[in-house]
Amino acid sequence: MKKVIVGIMGPGNNATPADLKRAYQLGQYIAQAGWVLLTGGRKAGVMEAANQGAKAAGGLTIGILPTEDSMGISEAVDIAICTDLGNARNNINVLSSDVVIACGMGTGTASEIALALKAGKKVVLLSDHQESQLFFASLSPDNIFLTTNPEAAIEFVQKVLTKHF
Amino acid sequence: MKKVIVGIMGPGNNATPADLKRAYQLGQYIAQAGWVLLTGGRKAGVMEAANQGAKAAGGLTIGILPTEDSMGISEAVDIAICTDLGNARNNINVLSSDVVIACGMGTGTASEIALALKAGKKVVLLSDHQESQLFFASLSPDNIFLTTNPEAAIEFVQKVLTKHF
Amino acid sequence: MKKVIVGIMGPGNNATPADLKRAYQLGQYIAQAGWVLLTGGRKAGVMEAANQGAKAAGGLTIGILPTEDSMGISEAVDIAICTDLGNARNNINVLSSDVVIACGMGTGTASEIALALKAGKKVVLLSDHQESQLFFASLSPDNIFLTTNPEAAIEFVQKVLTKHF
Amino acid sequence: MKKVIVGIMGPGNNATPADLKRAYQLGQYIAQAGWVLLTGGRKAGVMEAANQGAKAAGGLTIGILPTEDSMGISEAVDIAICTDLGNARNNINVLSSDVVIACGMGTGTASEIALALKAGKKVVLLSDHQESQLFFASLSPDNIFLTTNPEAAIEFVQKVLTKHF
Repeated sequence: MKKVIVGIMGPGNNATPADLKRAYQLGQYIAQAGWVLLTGGRKAGVMEAANQGAKAAGGLTIGILPTEDSMGISEAVDIAICTDLGNARNNINVLSSDVVIACGMGTGTASEIALALKAGKKVVLLSDHQESQLFFASLSPDNIFLTTNPEAAIEFVQKVLTKHF
Repeated sequence: MKKVIVGIMGPGNNATPADLKRAYQLGQYIAQAGWVLLTGGRKAGVMEAANQGAKAAGGLTIGILPTEDSMGISEAVDIAICTDLGNARNNINVLSSDVVIACGMGTGTASEIALALKAGKKVVLLSDHQESQLFFASLSPDNIFLTTNPEAAIEFVQKVLTKHF
Repeated sequence: MKKVIVGIMGPGNNATPADLKRAYQLGQYIAQAGWVLLTGGRKAGVMEAANQGAKAAGGLTIGILPTEDSMGISEAVDIAICTDLGNARNNINVLSSDVVIACGMGTGTASEIALALKAGKKVVLLSDHQESQLFFASLSPDNIFLTTNPEAAIEFVQKVLTKHF
Repeated sequence: MKKVIVGIMGPGNNATPADLKRAYQLGQYIAQAGWVLLTGGRKAGVMEAANQGAKAAGGLTIGILPTEDSMGISEAVDIAICTDLGNARNNINVLSSDVVIACGMGTGTASEIALALKAGKKVVLLSDHQESQLFFASLSPDNIFLTTNPEAAIEFVQKVLTKHF
């Protein structure tokens, strides 16, 4: 039977130290909750940190890669999905996640939040960036949850999953 | 030889009257400039208005459809590209446009602006929505041009194209 | 209103002299019939020959590129659609074509014929390769038309289009 | 660290009883070997049988769905990847598989074999269909292995993986 998948989206090389710390913690919590972690799979930034956190807690990790092979993959990814779709793979990231957590901000992450909201998904946004908070809250107020606290993010995910499953 | 393509992205059913008026004007100006118009192709909102404007001025119009066939296409589209990719086709919209004009705001449009900026494209944003202006200007200040005036948008496109071609 | 699009699929670097000659002729006939030519867009093999033929006859040509930009495009392509999908773009090639003509054989071409038949499209196969003729005729006998003659191919396309439009 | 993934491709509703029996056995063997099974994920034909076989042997199963959600998924799929790409997802199926096994024949399966060969993957074809054997052997003789025996198929996969890892 289909396992619960929680996606963490966030910047690669431009991740801040706060993004990385939160991503690692989120990865740990997701694994501890028994959920599968999904990321963009690359060995960079939020993707790498989240996968490392999830593996440290014994979780299962999926990486949806933009490339045709698994070059550049995080060593903490168990299941590599090679899409060769470039950034079009961002839509797969969000459609395959039961809930989406955005950790930090960048152009790729912004596209993933927007695509997730377009698909009617619930999105947690962990960001210290005020323009991001105001924009996404205005874009889809019913489906976005703003916080800077990983524990609060996980509580929200738990609530969403309880309703759905 | 490859023709210049200018993309207009914008909401479907949730477009405002101001969005529709601007989209029609932009479509006209694009056709008058001898450029090809690219949109998401559906018979709705900004897509429909832009295509109608371009055809009224004798232009050539391309629609990149999310569907496997051309059901639901604007009658003002000349060239239907049937992708069957759902919203993943948004990345094709921006990659195929030499410059991207976003006219109005919504989750799909936000994803297109973000994907365009990710790809290093110049983006004109015509929006009365302050949160959108502040967010995208903060996300990629060098590549976004904010205006509410279609003529100013076209002047900006002309400048970008002059540098590139 | 949507124009009729006829797709020519065929090998790039491994095209035979017979494939190239037929592709050029097919491109000419398609343009003369007033149809739009669609190919994979690269400056190689059947794609290049078909586009050159269509332009020599004053036609309009679309190239659905596997790449994120138009590097490597045939100079005889008018409209470049940049997909960044790699070979997944093959499905767009066939879905966007009202009829598909396969000219020659290779792994990419075989995938396009199979995807076209999967989508219920009519496919003309111009190939001297007996295994290909036998295989595709057995796979979908009602939708495949075998010939080695470009004029017969175009007559078949004309018949299919007459029924559909 | 990335787990080994073996893909089984084959027809849905048009699978023969022999296809289904082989798919179930292949699924079992793949799980027993400690590999992850990847299929197109739908509750039909070869996909369903392979997933049932793998779960009966305690394996881990991935389904790459053509749809935007997991409606119509095999109940024996653990990890649902929702692509919303239609048949363009066939390219992800083969790129994500370390080795591809085609079990039976149809238009979708033919596209997957062709795309796998295009990507330089090794492909095992289990089919009683002579035209298929002759065609794919002629298309890419170095990368195709023909058999009608699931045990021989698994032995071939083992040899390929030993060279690669």
